[in-house]
Formats: sequence, C-alpha cells, structure tokens
Amino acid sequence: MISKANIQLVKSLQDKKQRQKYNQFVVEGEKSITELLKSPFTVLKLYAVSEFLTQYAQLLKNVPFEEVNDKELKQMSAHMAPQKAIAVVKMPDESSIPSNVKLILALDEIQDPGNLGTIIRIADWYGIEHIVCSRGCTDVYNPKCINSTMGSFLRVKVHYQDIIQVAEQTKLPIMVAVLEGQNIHKGNLPKEGVLVIGNEGHGVHASIIAKAKHKLSIPSYGGAESLNAAISTAIILDNLIQA
Amino acid sequence: MISKANIQLVKSLQDKKQRQKYNQFVVEGEKSITELLKSPFTVLKLYAVSEFLTQYAQLLKNVPFEEVNDKELKQMSAHMAPQKAIAVVKMPDESSIPSNVKLILALDEIQDPGNLGTIIRIADWYGIEHIVCSRGCTDVYNPKCINSTMGSFLRVKVHYQDIIQVAEQTKLPIMVAVLEGQNIHKGNLPKEGVLVIGNEGHGVHASIIAKAKHKLSIPSYGGAESLNAAISTAIILDNLIQA
Repeated sequence: MISKANIQLVKSLQDKKQRQKYNQFVVEGEKSITELLKSPFTVLKLYAVSEFLTQYAQLLKNVPFEEVNDKELKQMSAHMAPQKAIAVVKMPDESSIPSNVKLILALDEIQDPGNLGTIIRIADWYGIEHIVCSRGCTDVYNPKCINSTMGSFLRVKVHYQDIIQVAEQTKLPIMVAVLEGQNIHKGNLPKEGVLVIGNEGHGVHASIIAKAKHKLSIPSYGGAESLNAAISTAIILDNLIQA
Repeated sequence: MISKANIQLVKSLQDKKQRQKYNQFVVEGEKSITELLKSPFTVLKLYAVSEFLTQYAQLLKNVPFEEVNDKELKQMSAHMAPQKAIAVVKMPDESSIPSNVKLILALDEIQDPGNLGTIIRIADWYGIEHIVCSRGCTDVYNPKCINSTMGSFLRVKVHYQDIIQVAEQTKLPIMVAVLEGQNIHKGNLPKEGVLVIGNEGHGVHASIIAKAKHKLSIPSYGGAESLNAAISTAIILDNLIQA
C-alpha cells in the first residue's frame, strides 16, 4: 500500500518549484500514459488501479509500478475527473534546436497552461518539432498543460529561450502574428522562419515586432475583434504549411 | 446596498435550471459588458463598482444599475478573477434561421462550455451568424461559455435544434469533419452547407455522417492523432471561407 508520504510527493509535483527541485513531473490519463510507456521518456514510477495494470501488462515490463486504489489516485491527482493511472516521469535533458530546422513556433508570454498544451498539440499535428517559449511563458510541465497536449509533449520539444536570440542563432526570419499585417490568404507566404504568437492581452512584444521580417494577419469576415492564441496558431500554421 | 437575496439570485443564474426559470443569464467582464450595453440585448440590472459606473456613465442612460463593492461582486460572480461589473440580461427570444443563409455551423454534443464559447467567437470572426447545437450540447448561457465568447454571443445566434432537420429545412448539404475524408487543402471545397463538428470523444454521430454530402478532413503532418473541436472548426472555416 502506498504511503502518505509518497502520495504527498506525487501531489507536490503540481507545484513548479517542486518539479524543478526533483526534476520530475507527472502524467495522467490513459491515452497519455500508454503513449508515454512506448516513448523514450523515463518513467520513474507508475501508480495505477489493478484494471489498468492488467490491461497494459505488456507495456510495464521495464517500469517500476505500484497498485493503488481510486481514492489514493484521486489524492495524488490534479484532475477533478477520476483517472486510472498516474506516472512520475524524469524531465528530459535540455536539448538544442538542430540547425536544419526551417519552421519554429515561438510563444511570447503565453500564460494559460491549457492554451500552451493545446498549442503543443497543434504544433505536433503540423509536424513542428520545436517550440521556443519566452521566459514569461507558463511551465510546460504544469499538469494542466501536459494533459492538454494529449500526448504531444512526447514529440514536441519546448525550449525556454530568448526568441530574438533563437532567430539570430538559426538565421531564420521572424514572422509575427499581428492584427494588421499581410493577409495570410493572399500572396506568397514565407516557407521558413520563427513564427511568433503573442499573449492575448498584450500581443507580441514591440521589441520582437521591430525585428520581424514578416507581419501576418488572419483576415476577419465578421464582428469578433480577435481570436485566442491557440486558434491563431492553428490557422496560421495551416496556411504556412501550404506555402 | 444590495440585499443578500439579490446576491443569491444573481449567483443562482450560474445554474441552468434557474436561468430557464427566470429567462435570464449573466454577463461579466468589462469588454463583454461594454459591448452588451451597445447591443439590442435587454439588460435587466447592472451591478458594478463605482469606477466602472463613472467610466461608462454614457452607456448607462437607459439601464437600471446599482453600485456594489468588490466583495459583493465576488459573491455574485462565477469567476475566480475579480470583475468590475456583472449584468443580468434577458434571454433573447428564439429566432428561426433565415432562408438565405448559405453557411451554418452545427455542433454535435459539444460538452465543454469554454469550447462552445471559443467556437462562437470563431464563428463570429468568420461572419457565421447561425450555429445549430444538438440537444446534447452544453448551454450557451453558461457563464463560462458567455465569457469565452468575448462578446461574440451578441452577434452569433445559437439554435438548439435537430441538425438533420435543419439541413432538410434549409435544403443545405451536410458537411462533416471526420478523420478520413476529403483533404481540405486539395480540390474544390463546397461553398455552402451545414458544417457539422463532433464532440471530441465520439466525433460526429453516425446518423449524421450517413446523411453527409461532404466529408472533410484536415491533413496531418505530424504525430498528433486529433485536434480539439474548436481548433478543427477554426481551420475548416478558414479553408471554406476561401472556397
């Protein structure tokens, strides 16, 4: 039976400081965990109900696991809805962005973990493997963010770096999403670059817009004044990918 | 000073049964409320802090209002973050879909109020004025949904009706978003129809797919298995609008 101290330890990983102290984060949800178990990520411990352990026995050969009951899982979880398993995972080592990458997504102070997770899932859909997050962005290992990625955190690498520095290092042009720029439905779109999406309240920082080679806009046909960051990311990537 | 009974009454409108009983709903947030005050919607009562009442005095000429303090507002609110005002609004009368509408968005059992609100905002961006919600969809007057629309609920009409019946009445072809259909980046897309977006877990009901003239898919370039309903809606509308 799992000790109270271990329940507390897992629960404490909902907090960023604790995640950084232990270099660990948690993954919940059947779909994310089964994908995780097939990935190169290191699962330090899996806590699951007996039903899950039986169903996925094949995936658990090299993974330390412990059976828990629903009540114990709920105590460890960041979710309101009941989960069948929770995994404690080692944070991957920081990696650099390969020099042959042609399209990078950069996020300027995205604050909402659910939004960040949704954007990671969109990037994964469009085959974008690297996201640069400005230091003001929320933490990718926040449980809400990990959950919103629906497993895409396993494929998309998130780098906390200065966006302008990354553009300079990779020699890729900066593209920014702004309200008044080139209509993405008209003319030629750039085939490569660092696409910067801003925070909903403030948009992209002026210092980044000043360095941008391309200013892109989604044309509006109705009354809404703006779209949220994840929606804008999806629409712009869908257009860029066809360029 | 606002009575405890009135605070309770406003708070009770977070509950669908109470909203239906009183035929009222609440709107919060500075942006949504200032747009609301300029719209044809009937504001039955506005509760706001003095700062808000002073700043928007011009908009309040024909609106019954009462000054409240931060604590009282917080007691009435569905939000965690502090708001400056909350409006009690009369639900608009149900309207029918005009016969000249060529593009209708239909939602099949969208459960999450935040998702529904985001989709209403996207529809508004693309000039879609009518959304059909299946009876299994969440309530548009849920405060989380209204908040997520960022004011777009004032322009987009949501009809709770049977999706197939609407298609038959309007004589518009049904288009469904499915995982394996016509690539929306290739070939000609339909210029008119009822675009049906399904719930994330189950997709579009088989009975609707069986009646669909067009099955549309967003091509995938990476590892994610799916996109969420709001993201899919945005990408498909962005492509349809260019057809």
